[in-house]
Amino acid sequence: MTDLSDATGRQILFGGDYNPEQWPEEVWADDVRLMQEAGVNSVTLGVFSWAKLEPRPGARDFGWLDRLMDLLHAHSIGVVLATPTASPPPWMGHRHPETLPRDEHGQTVWYGSRQQFCPSSPVYRAYATALTEDLAARYGGHPALRVWHINNEYCTHCWCDGTADHFRRWLTAKYATLDALNEAWGTAFWSQRYDDWSEIIPPRRAQYMKNPGQVLDFKRFTSDALLECYEAERDIVARHTPQIPVTTNFMPFWTGQDAWKWSEREDVVSVDSYPDPADAWGGQYNAMIGDMTRSQARGPWMLMEQAAGPVNWRGVNHPKPRGLNRLWSLQSVARGADAICYFQWRQSRQGAEKFHSGMLSHAGEQGRTYQEIKQLGAELTTLSEAATGTTTPAEIAILHDWESWWADQQDGRISSEVDYPEVVRAWHRALWEAGRTTDFAHPAHDLSAYTMVVIPHLYLLTDTSIDNLLSYVRGGGTLVCGFHTGTADEDDRIRAGGMDARLRELFGITTLQEWWPLDAGTTVDCDGFRATLWSEELTASAEAETVASYKGGELDGLPAVLRNGRAWYVSTLPEPDALRDLLARVADGAGAAPVLPGAPAAVEAVRRGDLLFLLHHGRDTVTVPVPGRHHDLLTGTTVDGSLDLGRFGVAVLREVGP
Amino acid sequence: MTDLSDATGRQILFGGDYNPEQWPEEVWADDVRLMQEAGVNSVTLGVFSWAKLEPRPGARDFGWLDRLMDLLHAHSIGVVLATPTASPPPWMGHRHPETLPRDEHGQTVWYGSRQQFCPSSPVYRAYATALTEDLAARYGGHPALRVWHINNEYCTHCWCDGTADHFRRWLTAKYATLDALNEAWGTAFWSQRYDDWSEIIPPRRAQYMKNPGQVLDFKRFTSDALLECYEAERDIVARHTPQIPVTTNFMPFWTGQDAWKWSEREDVVSVDSYPDPADAWGGQYNAMIGDMTRSQARGPWMLMEQAAGPVNWRGVNHPKPRGLNRLWSLQSVARGADAICYFQWRQSRQGAEKFHSGMLSHAGEQGRTYQEIKQLGAELTTLSEAATGTTTPAEIAILHDWESWWADQQDGRISSEVDYPEVVRAWHRALWEAGRTTDFAHPAHDLSAYTMVVIPHLYLLTDTSIDNLLSYVRGGGTLVCGFHTGTADEDDRIRAGGMDARLRELFGITTLQEWWPLDAGTTVDCDGFRATLWSEELTASAEAETVASYKGGELDGLPAVLRNGRAWYVSTLPEPDALRDLLARVADGAGAAPVLPGAPAAVEAVRRGDLLFLLHHGRDTVTVPVPGRHHDLLTGTTVDGSLDLGRFGVAVLREVGP
Amino acid sequence: MTDLSDATGRQILFGGDYNPEQWPEEVWADDVRLMQEAGVNSVTLGVFSWAKLEPRPGARDFGWLDRLMDLLHAHSIGVVLATPTASPPPWMGHRHPETLPRDEHGQTVWYGSRQQFCPSSPVYRAYATALTEDLAARYGGHPALRVWHINNEYCTHCWCDGTADHFRRWLTAKYATLDALNEAWGTAFWSQRYDDWSEIIPPRRAQYMKNPGQVLDFKRFTSDALLECYEAERDIVARHTPQIPVTTNFMPFWTGQDAWKWSEREDVVSVDSYPDPADAWGGQYNAMIGDMTRSQARGPWMLMEQAAGPVNWRGVNHPKPRGLNRLWSLQSVARGADAICYFQWRQSRQGAEKFHSGMLSHAGEQGRTYQEIKQLGAELTTLSEAATGTTTPAEIAILHDWESWWADQQDGRISSEVDYPEVVRAWHRALWEAGRTTDFAHPAHDLSAYTMVVIPHLYLLTDTSIDNLLSYVRGGGTLVCGFHTGTADEDDRIRAGGMDARLRELFGITTLQEWWPLDAGTTVDCDGFRATLWSEELTASAEAETVASYKGGELDGLPAVLRNGRAWYVSTLPEPDALRDLLARVADGAGAAPVLPGAPAAVEAVRRGDLLFLLHHGRDTVTVPVPGRHHDLLTGTTVDGSLDLGRFGVAVLREVGP
Repeated sequence: MTDLSDATGRQILFGGDYNPEQWPEEVWADDVRLMQEAGVNSVTLGVFSWAKLEPRPGARDFGWLDRLMDLLHAHSIGVVLATPTASPPPWMGHRHPETLPRDEHGQTVWYGSRQQFCPSSPVYRAYATALTEDLAARYGGHPALRVWHINNEYCTHCWCDGTADHFRRWLTAKYATLDALNEAWGTAFWSQRYDDWSEIIPPRRAQYMKNPGQVLDFKRFTSDALLECYEAERDIVARHTPQIPVTTNFMPFWTGQDAWKWSEREDVVSVDSYPDPADAWGGQYNAMIGDMTRSQARGPWMLMEQAAGPVNWRGVNHPKPRGLNRLWSLQSVARGADAICYFQWRQSRQGAEKFHSGMLSHAGEQGRTYQEIKQLGAELTTLSEAATGTTTPAEIAILHDWESWWADQQDGRISSEVDYPEVVRAWHRALWEAGRTTDFAHPAHDLSAYTMVVIPHLYLLTDTSIDNLLSYVRGGGTLVCGFHTGTADEDDRIRAGGMDARLRELFGITTLQEWWPLDAGTTVDCDGFRATLWSEELTASAEAETVASYKGGELDGLPAVLRNGRAWYVSTLPEPDALRDLLARVADGAGAAPVLPGAPAAVEAVRRGDLLFLLHHGRDTVTVPVPGRHHDLLTGTTVDGSLDLGRFGVAVLREVGP
Repeated sequence: MTDLSDATGRQILFGGDYNPEQWPEEVWADDVRLMQEAGVNSVTLGVFSWAKLEPRPGARDFGWLDRLMDLLHAHSIGVVLATPTASPPPWMGHRHPETLPRDEHGQTVWYGSRQQFCPSSPVYRAYATALTEDLAARYGGHPALRVWHINNEYCTHCWCDGTADHFRRWLTAKYATLDALNEAWGTAFWSQRYDDWSEIIPPRRAQYMKNPGQVLDFKRFTSDALLECYEAERDIVARHTPQIPVTTNFMPFWTGQDAWKWSEREDVVSVDSYPDPADAWGGQYNAMIGDMTRSQARGPWMLMEQAAGPVNWRGVNHPKPRGLNRLWSLQSVARGADAICYFQWRQSRQGAEKFHSGMLSHAGEQGRTYQEIKQLGAELTTLSEAATGTTTPAEIAILHDWESWWADQQDGRISSEVDYPEVVRAWHRALWEAGRTTDFAHPAHDLSAYTMVVIPHLYLLTDTSIDNLLSYVRGGGTLVCGFHTGTADEDDRIRAGGMDARLRELFGITTLQEWWPLDAGTTVDCDGFRATLWSEELTASAEAETVASYKGGELDGLPAVLRNGRAWYVSTLPEPDALRDLLARVADGAGAAPVLPGAPAAVEAVRRGDLLFLLHHGRDTVTVPVPGRHHDLLTGTTVDGSLDLGRFGVAVLREVGP
Repeated sequence: MTDLSDATGRQILFGGDYNPEQWPEEVWADDVRLMQEAGVNSVTLGVFSWAKLEPRPGARDFGWLDRLMDLLHAHSIGVVLATPTASPPPWMGHRHPETLPRDEHGQTVWYGSRQQFCPSSPVYRAYATALTEDLAARYGGHPALRVWHINNEYCTHCWCDGTADHFRRWLTAKYATLDALNEAWGTAFWSQRYDDWSEIIPPRRAQYMKNPGQVLDFKRFTSDALLECYEAERDIVARHTPQIPVTTNFMPFWTGQDAWKWSEREDVVSVDSYPDPADAWGGQYNAMIGDMTRSQARGPWMLMEQAAGPVNWRGVNHPKPRGLNRLWSLQSVARGADAICYFQWRQSRQGAEKFHSGMLSHAGEQGRTYQEIKQLGAELTTLSEAATGTTTPAEIAILHDWESWWADQQDGRISSEVDYPEVVRAWHRALWEAGRTTDFAHPAHDLSAYTMVVIPHLYLLTDTSIDNLLSYVRGGGTLVCGFHTGTADEDDRIRAGGMDARLRELFGITTLQEWWPLDAGTTVDCDGFRATLWSEELTASAEAETVASYKGGELDGLPAVLRNGRAWYVSTLPEPDALRDLLARVADGAGAAPVLPGAPAAVEAVRRGDLLFLLHHGRDTVTVPVPGRHHDLLTGTTVDGSLDLGRFGVAVLREVGP
């Protein structure tokens, strides 16, 4: 077993993707000089180098990479070495068109961009593993090597005939018999019964709504097919270098991979986090991604990619205002990151991402971006000893599950206004604003360590997960559950009554009459607050306490928020302040206090190990009361009872006694 | 000849689609018990049972259906038996890919949903008729059989090469010579002249706007190709059971079938009506669908599908508030329905429509939905004797024509803001609000029985239709005609002057200078009202009276509404209140009085036979003056001069003398 | 050498596309009578007559065209004769499906519309040139022939395998070596390196953003492939009739053709201008198209198509109010047109454009449209002698370049809100409102004749163009440069610093830190004005004068508008009034005065030769001060010091001395 500490050596990794193949070699010397000045100690090589490493089938050109590995090592810069398998060279698509994906409309997805591979293609897999084998053999012993980075942002999908074969094999393994498959998919509906395995195809373009079970299984299958690609390469590098940790970088909160499942197959969990600088709640988003990744990692994690300035894939791409890159980077450290890395080191001059920022932007060495990077590099060095390897504690867990997401967000659902990640984000934001640090967990995970657990919205819950929730509450836990939860079983079969009977009993619901989704832009009044998106027509049991009722409209007087002992049910989405106040009130009752009571609204407080991070997300100077005496690691000063934080200011405090 | 009365036996049919193949057989006993408690006397079986009846090519599995037919008959529940040909099993698409439709982009439409058949496919037709033959042979003599239901919501389209062959045969039959086709399609434009029949294809994806004649004929052809499929199956069942009426259920006001033509080939006209519960004018929509279907049926009709609660194919799917299902169901009876049925009996647990409500919803027997169904079932029983077989009289006809719709709503038209069904709906709403019951009619139908005829907007009018309109007015009829009418002939050829000369003369228009469409969200002022969507630059003849002029803008002072004796021309779309007042004024003048003068605004009054239905579409209690003495069939009370109706209240009155 | 004067003979060409093949021959006599009454002296024949001329492969039917040519000549109406190659007959697509384009998704683009040819198809080219040869041989000597019109609005695109072959040949000619291509396209990014020419394809549908160099070259290639088609036909007709000028009609400001390059290959530059009558700035748009076309023509030009009334390809198609057609037509004469033509003479009864107006509309001879055409025809006759062949002088040039547009408007750019033609239009409007007449120029053109040059936004500038700009300013010119200019080189490679260093020096910019695009609907405050769309974080040199700073926000106090001697840099898009005032101020300083100081806001003044055109774009009568004494050619009156112009009024003045 190996983990991120094998790569860090108690030094926060700082650096980014490095693509020197885009530049003449004379630039490389300039690169390492500027890296050293900025405190860069880690770069990621080779992410998109397949065509350079294997310019034609079976050829190998390692010379340039040899020189780079040596150059970096000579300057004490470690290497995260990638397998370049995310973007096959043009020769592959040209010579082996069956490696190119087909979309659900049957259209070929061509080369000329990236990720144009069918994950089920044996030809693709053979080329990918052969090159991985040679890379591992050649560089496994190189002293610069710190981490293996497999592929990049696995996200391709394919509906081709080869994928159909693979899907059938996966289904055969899962169901064993066609009867079981027909039962699980409910193919009695609309005459969809399969009589022979050979009839089964991916859910391709159709006249109307598709079979939900087929769609759900195809999402599971695609995540698994990509995972097979990952594991094939991981097994190769792990065989060569059992001591070097392996990762693949997730896209944040992305639908295509079940990251709970994937993260168990990684030594290091890494993620790419790109909050929008123009989003007033970008800091909360970054906190959420950090919390989710830390929970998957069950310890320190790696921020594999972020942007030092603007990205280039939004409609309007806003730069980062002065100080924001530092604030969000230190926030990631606070929430458990032991590696702060970027896409990419030097901004590209050509290619589709030439407007994506780099640590060294088009403005160059004198540019604001690089100057801010230098400052950050120095501060990370200051924090490394104290921060690395330590834990960010959380008393509250937010439950999240990819399978529920996949089952929920299909055609033919109750409301297309419900955007699952946005609902999760609303609940995370409420707790973030309420000053509580949160973990994420799967509904079948052991929850007993948490004071409180919240479910923003889990449409699908397995019997196992329901058992788990019931025993959590029986064991003394406090559970707050959002709308439309526990409706479907693992085959996306609606449970009798529209919600699992044991859950209804838990929350004190006798009958769930109807779901009343709200139109976009409309609200529903409740006692003391307004809510959006959803409401429900419920009948409560005698034991249940109606915490808040609907007011007006068809649901007038019916319960909006129910409580049955330690189990709370929130049948709508309260507006942000109301959800914050509600969850704060439940947390207070459960004994889950804010990290720093009395902190100003814009100041986020997070503990990591024995450090207290104070992160100011506003531009106006505020005074933060901090009981006791502390040492500020960044300024070297002593803080006695309170401190001032300016625009995007950060303090990292350690208690020093009275 | 057979008709709906052969199925009803003076008992309003009440029930819905029944899909017991989705449930274990032990549920069936529960089903029939709950049906009987709710007064259900008719269920539709087999709509999507192809894969169960014919699990592999040529196989037959009728045992389960035998048991169901017997079970239902044993409980005195009649069966509307469907041919299951709307959704071929996966084996058909797998073994015979040429049965799968191709869209206009050449993309295959795969199985995994429903309706994935090319209507021109001989293979599809052979399998469909073979199964229909066996169904008819087996169940033609079963005592439970009441109605044959062919296919379901015919709506597939195909642009494949086989369709091209079929289209060419249809065109050859229509035009005989290529010269005639070239002339009709105007292929001199843009070098589109066909030199050989083999060159002709469906209107597939092109660089720019397509040939309007080709598009129009392809819509006619597609409706006819589907009609051939229908007639092939109808002929089979009619041969086996000449005494059992045959229907196929229309989608309401749907573009793909010329329902005037289709309804002539049915013994029973049936429709699926799904007004949006969140639409403030949903009741008017339901009235319009009822009026249209009654007019196609020329007598009692069948509401084949409606929803007891929410559907699941809108963006946001709203449930039905308490009482609304009853209100709209009784409204359908008032407007001529002798069958009130639902999709579906028991809400599905699986499949794409698991969130579409059923009469027995997820909430089950104690749920509000089923309880309301039970009440309705009892009331329909009360009304059956008095209502079935009787007529809903109307003095006013609204003209509507699919061919005009098809010609009108093409690329390259004057304004894409003009949505034909919405214009028709606006005129129906005006008359509905004005308290008049309306029929629908085709412009070539005999109109002499009507006091007044309105044309919301008929872009295409054949010479025959124009003759018909002229003789209607000559015969004493009052005609009110909306904008942009009579522009094209049956080949979509613009008539000289932009509007047929005889129609211009009828309305007193000397020159139609220009059509002035209005941008979305803008209005035009007229004397006394505002209008939307459209305006016209007209010169009026000396005989014509300018009822209202445009005010301001480029059309200032020009006629907006013209009258020439009994012929009125409305060159714009007045806002709802103005159109209501205008049509009420014309109707008053023509002698077409409201059904119940003085009824409150929210109360719809409709006569059927000797019954007067009062339907309250509001939530606040209102008092309805009803001259004379009446018996209320629903409450059994006597109404003397007036009655109160509460939320969604309904009264069904029969005069009892002073 | 031949030019437009060989066709006009000092008589402004007046007429339009004439498609008599859509009508019976008995209509033709009516046509020529009405043409003569309206002063029509030129019609365009044969644009879409391929299927009539060549009804099957190799056949020829010229009889009808012979009769038409003779008929027109007999009535003294000249002919602009088109090669009909824009719309191959159905037989071509049917017999040679490889002539049909494939889109970037691989879908076939079928016949049944127009322009369904792959420009790289040898089969298409062979048929097109064979027919052109026969047309030229037959009609080259006909006395009615005035101008050759090649094809029509070249605009097809294709991504098929034949196109791929052609693209590779084009690339081989451009780059000679694969290394050069890989370098130019930056294929080191995302592993896109090509190892063999055969691997290269057009930029087809991909997973994610495409290679920008490949996309840019494919746009260049497609423009060139179409140009080859044009030149092949041009060479044929020029060989037959060296004395007859040749043109092809451009779509206005269209992205698909580099009109700078194309116009050099034409004897006459012609354009189709369709301002929206509902656009309050439609007159400015028409002025811009006139200025651009005149600049491409370097002299008189041909307005090949405009609409006498509405078009039919907008969402809502508005007619032209009374007088507007005359105003915009005379405006085109003022801005250098020697030909005022329409699509089309007689409005079609059938086909996709039956709602596109004609000079003779559906309303016919008594209709307003034709009556206004007659008035205009008479006025053009009055002006012909004085106007034809003369020059419209301009002191200011607006720089525009298709290559920059193509490079700029790709996926992955900084802001998708930036619409290049809209930015150019904003700058043209500012100068138009400021009363200055403008030319357009390519950035590499000789600019020395201009007092002032403006660059609205040129993302890509070659070294040659930059040299040209620097020497222009060095030579005494005044340059005003808009945002995000000079960023990329000719391969779309970002220049060091994000903007060419010499340009930065020219404008006094030391560091370009970041581009700050603005969200839709938001503005940024500057000293004295507001701006939209874009802003920049700049550091200015000591020599540069900050003309206006940003106020508030992240850029507070940083320069928005910079001046360094005669070089001005505008880093944002000021709102219209502010941009007008800014450019007027710079022009005043540079000595570029308004055409008619003191003219009312709605009155456009343009000089052409010794004529002064006054064009009133408003509806209310205004008084225009005109120093001196003038003769008004249209009214025959004398103007002494001032004149009144009513709704859409026009005066054409010639100074007559005191």
